[in-house]
Amino acid sequence: MRDFSQDHRWLSINTATVRKSRGEDLPLPRILAAIAERGIRAISPWRDQVAAAGLANVSKQVRALGLELSGYCRGGMFPAADAAGLRAARDDNRRAVDEAAELRAACLVLVVGGLPGALQGQAAHKDIALARTQVQDGIGELLEHARQAKMPVAIEPLHPMYAADRACVNTMEQALDICDALDPGRSGDLGVAVDVYHVWWDPKLQQQIARAGRERILAFHVCDWLTPTTDLLNDRGMPGDGVIDIPRIRGWVEAQGFAGYSEVEIFSTGNWWKRPHEEVLDTCIARHRTVV
Amino acid sequence: MRDFSQDHRWLSINTATVRKSRGEDLPLPRILAAIAERGIRAISPWRDQVAAAGLANVSKQVRALGLELSGYCRGGMFPAADAAGLRAARDDNRRAVDEAAELRAACLVLVVGGLPGALQGQAAHKDIALARTQVQDGIGELLEHARQAKMPVAIEPLHPMYAADRACVNTMEQALDICDALDPGRSGDLGVAVDVYHVWWDPKLQQQIARAGRERILAFHVCDWLTPTTDLLNDRGMPGDGVIDIPRIRGWVEAQGFAGYSEVEIFSTGNWWKRPHEEVLDTCIARHRTVV
Repeated sequence: MRDFSQDHRWLSINTATVRKSRGEDLPLPRILAAIAERGIRAISPWRDQVAAAGLANVSKQVRALGLELSGYCRGGMFPAADAAGLRAARDDNRRAVDEAAELRAACLVLVVGGLPGALQGQAAHKDIALARTQVQDGIGELLEHARQAKMPVAIEPLHPMYAADRACVNTMEQALDICDALDPGRSGDLGVAVDVYHVWWDPKLQQQIARAGRERILAFHVCDWLTPTTDLLNDRGMPGDGVIDIPRIRGWVEAQGFAGYSEVEIFSTGNWWKRPHEEVLDTCIARHRTVV
Repeated sequence: MRDFSQDHRWLSINTATVRKSRGEDLPLPRILAAIAERGIRAISPWRDQVAAAGLANVSKQVRALGLELSGYCRGGMFPAADAAGLRAARDDNRRAVDEAAELRAACLVLVVGGLPGALQGQAAHKDIALARTQVQDGIGELLEHARQAKMPVAIEPLHPMYAADRACVNTMEQALDICDALDPGRSGDLGVAVDVYHVWWDPKLQQQIARAGRERILAFHVCDWLTPTTDLLNDRGMPGDGVIDIPRIRGWVEAQGFAGYSEVEIFSTGNWWKRPHEEVLDTCIARHRTVV
């Protein structure tokens, strides 16, 4: 297991972590500047942040600052209530691959989607098995485009509390079953993003990380599970502030040969998004060196 | 699959569902009277409600009203930070078995506990594997006492969002692994409580219900998953108001031979606990007949 205590060369910042500073939206160019200033070498930006700043501008700034992308957030949201919706999802995912390629991301992260309409508060149906079929079909179709673009695709199993509205792939085992079905040759083109927040509870986690192996672990995300957690989406903790044994999970991932970035991804309306982003980034660096 | 549309003979009310009426605490004796008045034949009361009313009084009232207990809530909370804590949990669980026996419950439901201290906001450690070992050891020890009391014990896998503070048994598969280890003979003394709220998201649910079989399905609980869900604990929906395909899951359970009560268990600070309990109970009956 790598020693993170001496520097932060393997730290990446998911830009959602400093999406807001002092409660106000922080534009991506300012986020990137603050990250580079601190000697952080990698980021994972969100599509909406990139769109707001302009893809060409972001691409240029990323290269000028010498930043790498540990991932690009995000493709997915495959299930739809009708054929037009499925086509729209397919097209949007292809664009996401192309953007990720322009930004030279290590992978495109997929939040696969849940029951269509649920995120808007009104699910079109209750057939989660159908949604899961649409997800697998959608990934299969996207994979061809992604291979042409040489962009690896990482399925992110999301915590089961998001099964209805954000992602109906909820365990490593389920994600790896999809990988086995669509990429039996373990080409490295399809894998998983292991986010400790989503999978820490899973009694089969160690076993499934071993099953994933080096070829299928495309990203590693960290934050922490707070007790109590007061919001299902936006109450993630800074590493060290919760109950997740992050080093243990990182050890399992690295035992498979993963040698990429450890990406901090925190959504925190009530705490970290209220603070100055400078403080948040400095805290990420400190925690990366001590508790990750 | 049984037809519930003509009557509510297979409806049970978990008394937490009407723990409050019009926002005020409702004592168990009044809850039981209101339930019996409506021709509902079964309940599942909570220990704190029973303690407040007095076990002997409750036992007497239950028999006078001819009510059955589809379960007794709850034993569990096995993990502890030290030997004294483990002993206290063991003793308390034995008392829970004895109370359940006095009330002639169909089973004692176990919410097994998570990381010690997490429910109070400060976990004593982050070793969920250790907590799981303590859970299995605790159930194994309790099982001897429960067998003497002829009280079946039902492990309730809780939704993974409760892994830290309430229950580190989070899937049917995990619960059934414990059953296999402690009761390989499938005696019926140890099984699971299937609560759709906790397990609906699980891609292996149908498979694991089939694995459980008739001997190990000791209880069936219903409510619904709302989108959005605004609170991790107390924002459960009335059946029909959320995204869970309850009849599909009930079909799987009944295909194994389960022929017991369908127990409505709702915690709802923001909605149902604010309403008159009479309305809540009437709604439970209506939904039982139409969407369960």
